[in-house]
Amino acid sequence: MSENSLEALGEMRKTHFSKDLSPDLVGQEVIIGGWVTRTRKLGGLVFIVLQDKFSTVQVTAKKGVVSDEIFEKAKSVGNQWCLLIKGEVKAFKNGPHGVELVPLEICILNQAIEQLPLDMTGKAMSDLDTRLNNRSLDLRHPRNQAIFRIQSVMLNEIRKYLVKNNYTEIMTPKIIGSATEGGTELFPIKYFDKDAYLSQSAQLYKERLCSVYENVFEIAPCYRAEKSFTNRHLCEIYQLDMELAFADYKDVLVAMEGLVQSVLQAIKVQCEEDLKILDQWENFEVPQIPFPRYTYSEVLKIIDEKCGIKIEFGEDISTEAYRKLDEILPGYYFITKWPMSVKPFYIHFDPENPELSDGFDLQKGWLELSSGGTRVHEKELLIKNLEKQGLNPDAFKSHLQAFDYGMPPHAGMGFGIARWLQIITGVDQIKECVFYPRTPDRLDP
Amino acid sequence: MSENSLEALGEMRKTHFSKDLSPDLVGQEVIIGGWVTRTRKLGGLVFIVLQDKFSTVQVTAKKGVVSDEIFEKAKSVGNQWCLLIKGEVKAFKNGPHGVELVPLEICILNQAIEQLPLDMTGKAMSDLDTRLNNRSLDLRHPRNQAIFRIQSVMLNEIRKYLVKNNYTEIMTPKIIGSATEGGTELFPIKYFDKDAYLSQSAQLYKERLCSVYENVFEIAPCYRAEKSFTNRHLCEIYQLDMELAFADYKDVLVAMEGLVQSVLQAIKVQCEEDLKILDQWENFEVPQIPFPRYTYSEVLKIIDEKCGIKIEFGEDISTEAYRKLDEILPGYYFITKWPMSVKPFYIHFDPENPELSDGFDLQKGWLELSSGGTRVHEKELLIKNLEKQGLNPDAFKSHLQAFDYGMPPHAGMGFGIARWLQIITGVDQIKECVFYPRTPDRLDP
Repeated sequence: MSENSLEALGEMRKTHFSKDLSPDLVGQEVIIGGWVTRTRKLGGLVFIVLQDKFSTVQVTAKKGVVSDEIFEKAKSVGNQWCLLIKGEVKAFKNGPHGVELVPLEICILNQAIEQLPLDMTGKAMSDLDTRLNNRSLDLRHPRNQAIFRIQSVMLNEIRKYLVKNNYTEIMTPKIIGSATEGGTELFPIKYFDKDAYLSQSAQLYKERLCSVYENVFEIAPCYRAEKSFTNRHLCEIYQLDMELAFADYKDVLVAMEGLVQSVLQAIKVQCEEDLKILDQWENFEVPQIPFPRYTYSEVLKIIDEKCGIKIEFGEDISTEAYRKLDEILPGYYFITKWPMSVKPFYIHFDPENPELSDGFDLQKGWLELSSGGTRVHEKELLIKNLEKQGLNPDAFKSHLQAFDYGMPPHAGMGFGIARWLQIITGVDQIKECVFYPRTPDRLDP
Repeated sequence: MSENSLEALGEMRKTHFSKDLSPDLVGQEVIIGGWVTRTRKLGGLVFIVLQDKFSTVQVTAKKGVVSDEIFEKAKSVGNQWCLLIKGEVKAFKNGPHGVELVPLEICILNQAIEQLPLDMTGKAMSDLDTRLNNRSLDLRHPRNQAIFRIQSVMLNEIRKYLVKNNYTEIMTPKIIGSATEGGTELFPIKYFDKDAYLSQSAQLYKERLCSVYENVFEIAPCYRAEKSFTNRHLCEIYQLDMELAFADYKDVLVAMEGLVQSVLQAIKVQCEEDLKILDQWENFEVPQIPFPRYTYSEVLKIIDEKCGIKIEFGEDISTEAYRKLDEILPGYYFITKWPMSVKPFYIHFDPENPELSDGFDLQKGWLELSSGGTRVHEKELLIKNLEKQGLNPDAFKSHLQAFDYGMPPHAGMGFGIARWLQIITGVDQIKECVFYPRTPDRLDP
C-alpha cells in the first residue's frame, strides 16, 4: 500500500447516505462514500458493495458501459478501502434500497492492509478478544454499527424525555478528594501533590444539586475498581443518574417506567433495521406500564415456592436465583422494600417498618438494570446511618454541609447504559456494548 | 434545629412551578415548593418569598384571613427552609408572575442553620472562595441558578443540532494506558497493578470512531494537570468533541458556525429571564453567519498595524495581543492557516503550502473557544509527524492500527463548554461556570 496512489478529497463531498437511496432517484447522479465490504469480479463485470454509517449500496461497473479507466479502478479496490463514488442511480430490485450505482467517478481516499485481522464479510464474528484488540475495524461490522446506532437513539431519547419533564442536566466531578463511600473499589489518582480518587458514582453530588435544581440528571462515566470477570461488569461504566426533589421512591418508579417505555417506543420506530441486523426485531416489545412491583419478601416467596431456592430475609438474591426467577418474571419489574441491612447509608428506611428500606431495584428478567430509592434528607439521621455502617462522618463534612440549608426530601436512581443496551441488542457480553471497554485486564486499545 | 419538628412529605406533591403561576389561575388552589429566600413580619402580616428551580412566588399570610395555626407557622420559618405550601392564587400586580399565594397549608420539610455562610438576599455576591467552599448553598443564588439553567438549554440544543445533522454520539474511555500525547500534563492513576492516566482529550478515539460512524460527537470530561491559575483554566473540563469524516477543516467551520448560531438563537428564545438576571439580555446577540475568517498571517498584520504589537511568524499569539485585538474583533471569528510548527502531530499541513497547517481556532473576542482542523489520515505521514515532534510511534501502536483500514479524510474540533458558558453569561471566572470546579488547589467540595 502506497500513499502516493491516494487521491485528495478536494471539493468532492457526499450528496447522500446509502439509506437515502431509493428508486425515486433513478437517473440522478449522486456521490456516496464509505468502505468496501465486498467485491466480485466476473470477467467484464465488477461489483463493489460500499458501506457507510447507515447501510450499504451496490456499485456495478460493466466494461463498455463505464470508461476503461473507471473499470480498471473498480477492479483494483480491496476490502475496507475508503472510497467516494459518483454514480448514476439505476433501479435494481435485488440491491439494497432497490437500486444500484453505475460509477462515473471513483475516488480512492485510502487503502487497507490486505490481511485483515477479522472476518468482516460473514455473519459469524471472530472471537471477542481478537475483536477488541482490533476494535477500530471490529466496530465497522454491521452488527456493531447497529448496536451503537441504537445507543445513539437511546441516549437522545432519554434526554428528550427528561428535558420535556423539566429535569436539569448536571455535570458532577469525577475526581474526588476522599474515599468517602469506602475505599477498596476506588482507583487512586495523584492530583498534583494530593491523593485523590476516581468517582464511583454521582450519588453525593446529585443529591446536593437536587437541593438547588430539584429534578436533575446526568449521563457520565463512573469508575469501579472491582476485579469482576462476569459478562455484565466493567471498570468504566456510563450511567444515567437521576435525582428527584420533593419526591419519594414511588415517584422514581413512575418516572423510570415512563422513561423506559418511551425510549423503547422510540427505538422501535427509529431502529427497525438495526434490530433486524441483531435478530431482535421479531421479539421486540415495548412494555406496558405500570411495571409489576414486588416487595423483596414477595420475591423471596416466589423464589422459594416456584424455584425451590431458600433465601433468608436479609440476604442478597443470588445470580442463580435471579436466573431461575427469569423464567417466571422475564419482563421489566421492580423489587421494592429491601431490608435496610443491605442498603447504603443514604437510603431511607420505610416509615412504616424501619427494618425495611425505601430502596428498590429495576429488573429486566434476571438482570439488575438500576438501583434507587428514597434518600435520607435529615442530617441527624444521615450521621446516625454513617456511624452505623462504620463510616466516619468527618470524612463527609462537605457533603453533610448541604444538609444544613433546607435539603428537600428526595429520591433517585442510577441506571447502567451499557447493561440496558445489552438487553435491547441481545448481546451476551457487556463489553460489546461499549466502544472501548475497560476491564481489570483490558486498558487498551 | 430539631428534626422532630420536620414534617413528612407523605402524599403531598407540587402541582406547579413558580414560573407556571399567572393571573389566569386566580381563585385556584395550587401546591408549590422550594426554599425561603426572604421573610418580612409586620405585626399581623407575614410575607414569605419562596424560590424553586425556576423563579419565586410571594406567599402572604394575614392574621384573621388565614387560620391562627397557619399564621404562627408562617411566622416561624427561617431563610432557606424547605417548604411545600398549598395556597389560593390571588392577583397581585407587584408580585412575581402577577400573583401571590394565600396559604392554606404549610409543610415544613426541612430547616436551615440560622447563620448562613453566604449572603443569599442581595445582588452582591460573597467572595468566590467562600462561595465555592459553600457551593451547595451558593448555587441556590438566583444568579447561579440562571447560569446552569442556561447551560442545560445549551447542552440540549447542541445535541439537537448534531442529532438532526446525522452525528452519532460516542463515548470514549477516560482511562488510557499510555501517556501518548506527552506526559507532563496528565494525571497518573493506579489501574490495578498497571500505570494509567486520565485522558486529556477524546482526540485519538474520536478519530478512530469517525472511521466507523463518520460524523461523531461527544460531550465529556477531559483532564489537564496544568498548574494554571488564570480565569479560564480548570483541571477538569467538559468538552464538546466533534469529528467529521469525508471532510476537511472548511466543513468544520461551517458546522461550527451553524451550531453556535442555532444554540444562541435557542438560548435567546428560552432563557430571556435568566439572561436578564445576569444583565446579559440587552446586549445579547445572535451572530450572523458565516463568521469572519482571518488567516494567522492576516491576524498578525492587524495586531501589528492596529494594536502596535509585533509577533514573529511561527510564534503563538499572546493573551495581551488577543486582549487588544478584542477591541477590533469583538465577535465570533475564525483564525485559519496557523503555522505547522505550533500544531500537534495529528493536524494536516495545508496542501498549498506545507509550512502552514489546516488547523484553526474559533475566537469570541479575545477568548479562544475552540481549536480544530483537518487531521492526517495517511498512516505514513502520521508516523513522520510523530517522529518530527519527538514522539515514539511504537507508543501509538493501537492508534496507528486504525489507519490500516481505510481511514477517511477527516476533520474536527474540541469546544470548551464552560468557556462558552462564561461568554454567554458574562461571568469573569470560569470556576463560576462549573458546578464543582477542580483546580490545582481545589479538590473539594
